[in-house]
Amino acid sequence: MGMTITEKIIAAHCGEREVRPGQFVYANVDVCLGNDITAPIAIEEFEKAGIKKVFDPEKIVLVPDHFTPNKDIQSAQQSKSLRVFAEKHHLKHYFEIGRMGIEHALLPEQGIVAPGELVIGADSHTCTYGALGAFSTGIGSTDLAACFATGKVWLKVPESIKFVFHGKARNWTSGKDFILYTIGKIGVDGALYKAMEFTGTAISDLPMDDRFTICNMAIEAGAKSGIIAPDKITENYVAGRVKREYVAYHSDPDSHYSKVYEFNAEEIVPQVALPSLPENTKSVYDVCGIKIDQVVIGSCTNGRISDLRIAAKILKGKKAHPSLRLIIIPATQEIYKQALKEGLIEIFIDAEAVVSTPTCGPCLGGHMGILAEGERALTTTNRNFVGRMGHPKSEIYLCSPAVAAASAITGKITPPSEMRPESCTKIPSI
Amino acid sequence: MGMTITEKIIAAHCGEREVRPGQFVYANVDVCLGNDITAPIAIEEFEKAGIKKVFDPEKIVLVPDHFTPNKDIQSAQQSKSLRVFAEKHHLKHYFEIGRMGIEHALLPEQGIVAPGELVIGADSHTCTYGALGAFSTGIGSTDLAACFATGKVWLKVPESIKFVFHGKARNWTSGKDFILYTIGKIGVDGALYKAMEFTGTAISDLPMDDRFTICNMAIEAGAKSGIIAPDKITENYVAGRVKREYVAYHSDPDSHYSKVYEFNAEEIVPQVALPSLPENTKSVYDVCGIKIDQVVIGSCTNGRISDLRIAAKILKGKKAHPSLRLIIIPATQEIYKQALKEGLIEIFIDAEAVVSTPTCGPCLGGHMGILAEGERALTTTNRNFVGRMGHPKSEIYLCSPAVAAASAITGKITPPSEMRPESCTKIPSI
Repeated sequence: MGMTITEKIIAAHCGEREVRPGQFVYANVDVCLGNDITAPIAIEEFEKAGIKKVFDPEKIVLVPDHFTPNKDIQSAQQSKSLRVFAEKHHLKHYFEIGRMGIEHALLPEQGIVAPGELVIGADSHTCTYGALGAFSTGIGSTDLAACFATGKVWLKVPESIKFVFHGKARNWTSGKDFILYTIGKIGVDGALYKAMEFTGTAISDLPMDDRFTICNMAIEAGAKSGIIAPDKITENYVAGRVKREYVAYHSDPDSHYSKVYEFNAEEIVPQVALPSLPENTKSVYDVCGIKIDQVVIGSCTNGRISDLRIAAKILKGKKAHPSLRLIIIPATQEIYKQALKEGLIEIFIDAEAVVSTPTCGPCLGGHMGILAEGERALTTTNRNFVGRMGHPKSEIYLCSPAVAAASAITGKITPPSEMRPESCTKIPSI
Repeated sequence: MGMTITEKIIAAHCGEREVRPGQFVYANVDVCLGNDITAPIAIEEFEKAGIKKVFDPEKIVLVPDHFTPNKDIQSAQQSKSLRVFAEKHHLKHYFEIGRMGIEHALLPEQGIVAPGELVIGADSHTCTYGALGAFSTGIGSTDLAACFATGKVWLKVPESIKFVFHGKARNWTSGKDFILYTIGKIGVDGALYKAMEFTGTAISDLPMDDRFTICNMAIEAGAKSGIIAPDKITENYVAGRVKREYVAYHSDPDSHYSKVYEFNAEEIVPQVALPSLPENTKSVYDVCGIKIDQVVIGSCTNGRISDLRIAAKILKGKKAHPSLRLIIIPATQEIYKQALKEGLIEIFIDAEAVVSTPTCGPCLGGHMGILAEGERALTTTNRNFVGRMGHPKSEIYLCSPAVAAASAITGKITPPSEMRPESCTKIPSI
């Protein structure tokens, strides 16, 4: 029997010709990542253990992105601990504010992750890099500490589930809608400790930004990882970013999947995940008209340039509804710069949006737009758990940048203009 | 004996032909202002008193600027209380995030304050509007609540001190340097409960932005207010912004001052106020070379368009020093937009600066760049008290945008390039 792309990458990283689901391995890590929440604990553990040197100063990445620019003294101390550690160990990849971005947008952009690599990160959305054809998963801070020292991680090889998206995506249906739809179908524990492998013509058509969004949210179905096999689009993306050799793995035709789901992309309309689980998905037409207090466009899920372009296309010449706060956060400084050049930032400012420097900020209830009691946010982020963005009595609705931008204009959940069917009677006018 | 401009404005607002220093008056208020820290307390008091209506929905201004976009649940609740109150009482001037700015930059910009008016605000830097030839002072939240109901404030008429700046300002010496120099001369209690009146050729030459900076920091010398008599420059500034009649008052030649200070502007070089009082001023040449961790350009003191232009002029084509974080915060959305149009934001992003949406943020240790233990900030803000921007063991140095920008490049306190004398041997190279 053949191997899946995930099994092949893991095998290559532990010196085996073959690995099988359920097998325990001790794998070499190409990149290990920490942020201003998780790395301070790892650093403390590393130092408590009396270890003098990191395994490789070129393979450890530290990104202070969650509570930065620092929101209080505690977060300032945490960021400082990253800064001091990076300097002490001459880390190549420490990203200071003003030169950084949200980790999961930043690492691919900077060419730090390549297809076929094995990446661990003390952040659950580390699964994002699966979009490059890498095996990439979230770990805890103590595992990160161990990896700082050894460059290795202990893993159980996950079973794979295949998701085939047939056909072609509808206009305004994005990677975010595909993954919300998927989670809606299988539930937040539908892929527990599994590798979610996304394939099919509708996936092959997707640009990299949408692929990152899909793999980013694999964790929201409980998955160990998400992955999309590298192709020409992947190759074009990494060209000029990744300066080293890499291997593009592909699943064997006879490889084993614990399950295979087949979806018709043409049937997938823009989705909204209702409070308080990402699996509570509905068609946007079923929920349009719900009044919202705040719209957030950004995060490691949907803060990339194509997300901003879509938002700008809809917001151009319009203003955010007076009763609503619109917060737009480019995911990296490079994206911010590109958006500036393309005039997107001006469109956002004219639309009376808050444009923030890159930060995870409101997504995790960190800062930069926390919700008060009874407030309702519509957001392109990844989790709508109770209290995630603020008060326990606030509500979070997840959606794509297109739905977020259209809704920002009306103050109510609204599908992007071109696709309003007559059946949706409650649709507010943009 | 004649009256000062301050006495004339107060007299006009309490129906007297004449008032004298020391006299207690009950004055009519043209504008009363609260923010997301101070207004919630005022609103609570107002409601506890069972009052049903505000005195005038056009004269109350609410600006959530300190902890916005909200940094946590508590600040979100506070902002919500402003929002609810503004809606309930149909306030004309409630400024939501994305449509706002730092209060003391916003109110003049929006034409909410005019020459000759009497303004109170539950924020100590309310004295800023003195630059328009208004009497304007900070009050507490309970006074604000009373003013919401009555439109009046109880005041003791302050004595005036006159500051005459003769001659012409040197190149790179700004309004910030004038006021730091003044506070350095008279001390942080040098104008206790006094009206500081700034005059002289060097003041007449100053554009409005520099005048706002000067009056903004009157409170740092303990003053009740700062004031600059309106002239052609004031008139041009308010033209198109203020849509109502106003009166431009001027001090009588025989009016009484408790003190008169005379300074030669040509002798004033760029200043730096060392920790931990604004009176600890030195010439920048005496302190150049001190290593800094963070530079902040912004706040109600120095976040206006001309401040950003000066910073951009120096930062153009340069990068912030790698060991330093540079945070630039346009004071209002209008200023942000103007800076975008002029290409300043692109210069800042290219310089690897963090560009934030308008907020008081780091100035008061609120959010958006809080200092860790042992860190040193050089900042264009107004106070360098112990722990003001973060950890009690951090340090704050105050300066002009020019000195801040030059220093951001070198990572050390540095005068702007054109003015380096040979005597300053420790000056880092830009």
